[in-house]
Amino acid sequence: MDHVPDQTINRLPIYLRCLTQARAVGIAVVNSLQLAQMAGTNAAQVRKDLSYLGELGRRGIGYDVEGLIAHVSDVLGLTEKRRVAIVGYGRLGGALHSYRGLADRGFDIVAVFDDDAGKVGAPAGDLTVASIDDLEDVLRSLDVEIVILATPTASGQDIAERVASAGVRAIMNFTNARLELPDDVRVRPVDLSVELQVLSFYLARTS
Amino acid sequence: MDHVPDQTINRLPIYLRCLTQARAVGIAVVNSLQLAQMAGTNAAQVRKDLSYLGELGRRGIGYDVEGLIAHVSDVLGLTEKRRVAIVGYGRLGGALHSYRGLADRGFDIVAVFDDDAGKVGAPAGDLTVASIDDLEDVLRSLDVEIVILATPTASGQDIAERVASAGVRAIMNFTNARLELPDDVRVRPVDLSVELQVLSFYLARTS
Repeated sequence: MDHVPDQTINRLPIYLRCLTQARAVGIAVVNSLQLAQMAGTNAAQVRKDLSYLGELGRRGIGYDVEGLIAHVSDVLGLTEKRRVAIVGYGRLGGALHSYRGLADRGFDIVAVFDDDAGKVGAPAGDLTVASIDDLEDVLRSLDVEIVILATPTASGQDIAERVASAGVRAIMNFTNARLELPDDVRVRPVDLSVELQVLSFYLARTS
Repeated sequence: MDHVPDQTINRLPIYLRCLTQARAVGIAVVNSLQLAQMAGTNAAQVRKDLSYLGELGRRGIGYDVEGLIAHVSDVLGLTEKRRVAIVGYGRLGGALHSYRGLADRGFDIVAVFDDDAGKVGAPAGDLTVASIDDLEDVLRSLDVEIVILATPTASGQDIAERVASAGVRAIMNFTNARLELPDDVRVRPVDLSVELQVLSFYLARTS
């Protein structure tokens, strides 16, 4: 399991989503071609990716949807709740807080932070906006595992260093900052314009 | 160019972002290893991906940053502005409207829609929230090329069909709906919880 390629790991959540959708419409068994079509890849890739997780499918029959959901969830560490904080509670931070499906998928937003004195102390859903001054203390006391970084880019590196110093080992980075952090901190950059650029490619080819 | 693999196309915007960052700090030439490290892939992958775009680098020297930015931008169709509409102007739609960098990268938000009578007609940045009743007419009259679908999942398929019927050929889908649309409509599903699930995998492995 320690040798699962990063690209395979990146596809596991997509398979999980497809499997969950299949289950929702009453499908009990899928073969690799069906799963590939739902996930936007090919059957050989599906078989190879899932082979890293052990012997899961049955030749000529396919994968048991319920069993595969449980197994992939387990591999992804989704069987326990993950404690998440949002740092930077502007429009994007606020939208992520109310983003559908995070709680359903085991991600509990347990704290939100901002540096704007006008926001600190205000209600944020069932939470209260915490001050960025208390960042390290609150992250530690709430045992936060993942931080969603939604600050302005200019303060991204500074805040990320403070987050890492508080023991958080995973950051979802919505800023444009290229974060330089200790090797044991895993960073996922998110850039929504990437998706638009991919769509732009296809528009340019077909127009 | 018609045979560039989808996976390569998906990486081109990431290379473009890395190259733009390199330029911002004054780097004029990068080799494939450097670009790979910035993009989170390997040098062979970078060379293979860029080989689809023609003979671009010089052996033993590398890629001219400025020239490669121009070339990748051209391939991605980013040299002309793309006209984009946001359908569903809740917290997520609003956050995407003010999302840093879309306009800088050639994506002009030219219309935003909602079905809430309390929002229709209200100001939205330099726009006014349009009624979903006028969706097809407004998309056509403004010549919208890309729609960002940020409605509730339940109405996703219905709205997407109307978007397609108005001639839009590219949809960025933030709903959970699995859209069934004509083959000439390109859909990019976006699921922010995927990134959290990948982080969760690494947390599960190291804890």
